[in-house]
Amino acid sequence: MEFSSFGKRFTRPSGTRELMDDLGAAMSADEPVMMLGGGNPAHIPAVLQRLAGRLRELAGRPRELRRMLADYAAPEGELRFRESLAAMLQRELGWPLGPEHIALTSGSQSGFFLLFNLLAGRFDDGGFRRILLPLTPEYVGYTDLGLEDGLLTARRPAIETLPDRLFKYHVDFDALDIGPDIAALCVSRPCNPTGNVLTDAELGQLARAAAARNLPLIIDGAYGLPFPGIVFTDATPYWDENVILCMSLSKIGLPAVRTGIVIARPEIVAALGAMNAVLSLAVGSVGAVLLRDLVDSGELLQLSRDVIRPFYARRAEQAVAWLRDALQGVDYYLHRPEGAFFLWLWLPGLPVSSAELYQRLKQRRVFVLPGEHFFPGLAGEWPHRHECLRLSYAQDPEAVREGIRTLGEELRRLR
Amino acid sequence: MEFSSFGKRFTRPSGTRELMDDLGAAMSADEPVMMLGGGNPAHIPAVLQRLAGRLRELAGRPRELRRMLADYAAPEGELRFRESLAAMLQRELGWPLGPEHIALTSGSQSGFFLLFNLLAGRFDDGGFRRILLPLTPEYVGYTDLGLEDGLLTARRPAIETLPDRLFKYHVDFDALDIGPDIAALCVSRPCNPTGNVLTDAELGQLARAAAARNLPLIIDGAYGLPFPGIVFTDATPYWDENVILCMSLSKIGLPAVRTGIVIARPEIVAALGAMNAVLSLAVGSVGAVLLRDLVDSGELLQLSRDVIRPFYARRAEQAVAWLRDALQGVDYYLHRPEGAFFLWLWLPGLPVSSAELYQRLKQRRVFVLPGEHFFPGLAGEWPHRHECLRLSYAQDPEAVREGIRTLGEELRRLR
Repeated sequence: MEFSSFGKRFTRPSGTRELMDDLGAAMSADEPVMMLGGGNPAHIPAVLQRLAGRLRELAGRPRELRRMLADYAAPEGELRFRESLAAMLQRELGWPLGPEHIALTSGSQSGFFLLFNLLAGRFDDGGFRRILLPLTPEYVGYTDLGLEDGLLTARRPAIETLPDRLFKYHVDFDALDIGPDIAALCVSRPCNPTGNVLTDAELGQLARAAAARNLPLIIDGAYGLPFPGIVFTDATPYWDENVILCMSLSKIGLPAVRTGIVIARPEIVAALGAMNAVLSLAVGSVGAVLLRDLVDSGELLQLSRDVIRPFYARRAEQAVAWLRDALQGVDYYLHRPEGAFFLWLWLPGLPVSSAELYQRLKQRRVFVLPGEHFFPGLAGEWPHRHECLRLSYAQDPEAVREGIRTLGEELRRLR
Repeated sequence: MEFSSFGKRFTRPSGTRELMDDLGAAMSADEPVMMLGGGNPAHIPAVLQRLAGRLRELAGRPRELRRMLADYAAPEGELRFRESLAAMLQRELGWPLGPEHIALTSGSQSGFFLLFNLLAGRFDDGGFRRILLPLTPEYVGYTDLGLEDGLLTARRPAIETLPDRLFKYHVDFDALDIGPDIAALCVSRPCNPTGNVLTDAELGQLARAAAARNLPLIIDGAYGLPFPGIVFTDATPYWDENVILCMSLSKIGLPAVRTGIVIARPEIVAALGAMNAVLSLAVGSVGAVLLRDLVDSGELLQLSRDVIRPFYARRAEQAVAWLRDALQGVDYYLHRPEGAFFLWLWLPGLPVSSAELYQRLKQRRVFVLPGEHFFPGLAGEWPHRHECLRLSYAQDPEAVREGIRTLGEELRRLR
């Protein structure tokens, strides 16, 4: 059967697609695996209990139940949740927002598909504009979103080496050169895959650079601020009229509910609403109704601060200790874990590519993500691209520990 | 702010967008309105109670709760639901299906966006192929789905007049001419907006015509068979390897959950999975987990047969009686109500367009949908296009009755 150009483009085999198939097969296999790949959040008991409690409450409240299940929402997403969220962000952070600044999407990824292709790509005047990723490594999911090739362009980072085999990526502002072909900037904060959290100073400088050229700055806060708040530094939440802040309910613990949140100027929110209407009639209301009371009461921020962040901070600490233990005698550097739930390992002079290392680990039932895929839009060869691994520490701790131990063995074999 | 060509295309003001904004404003207004527009299903108490019960059950079952909320599903959609649904369709209807024949999408509309643009549009060889709607009136939501203009082409119906001011549309097979530019055929059954249900003979003939040219036949069963089964004739559910059957959980009563279901040959299901992965990582699992037990036990079919269909059949009967009463002295024809939850009214020689009639009714707080919008892809002028109205009878019966009474008054004023 022959597919259209669009069909071929969005069904073509890609590195990321292969990884996802691998992960899917691993998750549904009978044999246990050590899962350090994938982006599924942990099952935090206190969070799941609270969600179960909310379902019981809502089952007994007919009006909210209807809103959650039985009524199409507005194209921009369920109105009361957007009102509550705007009020909370106003109250807690002083952001001057109303519901007209908030659109929901069917998960963050759909939001990025809409935003990237709304702001960049082919224009009616024949021009072509791009999304600039000022700092790679960056999120693999951006890679294939463009309706045409070349939607993304990216820059290498500056690398700061730190004591104790740690390092940190920074935006290389000297090399940032924002040309006339740039439509918007985009950074994840915390960064998926590296766990890097842009400092307030860096983010401010990016925001000013974007504003000076009248370009939107997209901040992918799926793991970040103000919720789920998986940030271990003292970074501050940031929004201004020129910023498009993308948030999500996934990393709170609701990835199967598919609720992305975009906070932006009303013109952009209206455009997202229009696209939602044409492409999917409406977005779902389950996440919105499930969490609205927790937004109103401040409980969502409290959960983020007192439960979710400490949970992952402990996990990060554990995983780092295991890694240091397992990698003795190996030449490695670890990105300082500042947020999200990944360790980003740099293995300078690795004698095989990280893709090959991934295959070897897979043979031993250890699933990681090879670093190759996390440089979307970056032109040119650079050995660093093939020397990194992303390790999730969100899943079963014993499997993480054993996976890290196995990784150490493989790396020593490679010396 | 300047948007890309894609952005402009999918945010442009359109007739349907205006209608949706009108409906949205009406629904959230303080003044009560008579809502005969929109496609929201009724709140059937027995269905909502059952759903509330399911939420309570799931709140107490940690594994299912995690699957519903906390774990990303496979790109084709939650596996266990797809297995259960395939087994049920095999058991009840003898269709030779496995989970590899079933993909979930974020609502039916997203499924149509993916399918239409996968099968038709621009091809790598420079060719352009279209979706043929063999019978208009047809669903308004198809109108703006194409990534380029001209994605749809459509045919006028044959009109059979029946006693008692009833009529019925049929496929005009003599005028069907399926040219080399056609990529697939698509029909809704029951038809939204007309409530027409293609006979088994008509559907068989369409299926053979499509198969003879090796083209898929897309059947939009959002209101239809085997569930929610809002069909008042003795039509039979139909699927074969060449058919793409699109179903939905919306008209069961779950429109805010956004669960579309596509049943097709594995090649197409795999393509939808790949597109889901790139464009939205995964689709939601809430609808799938919520209803899986009801699929396994046969309760979903029983609810459709014993609760949902009789509910709308009674509503249809009521609405027809009110209409006959209210339209005395008016020259009207009513499409025989065979399914879905709409009356389709034809007013031959209406002295104003149905768009103008819509405006007049809106002034009196009665919301209907003007027929103009339900001829997607149909070329050429045809007075019939401007002489029809779609009236939903799913909402509050008193409002429907009063709306129909007001319609009668307006029509008599126009004589």
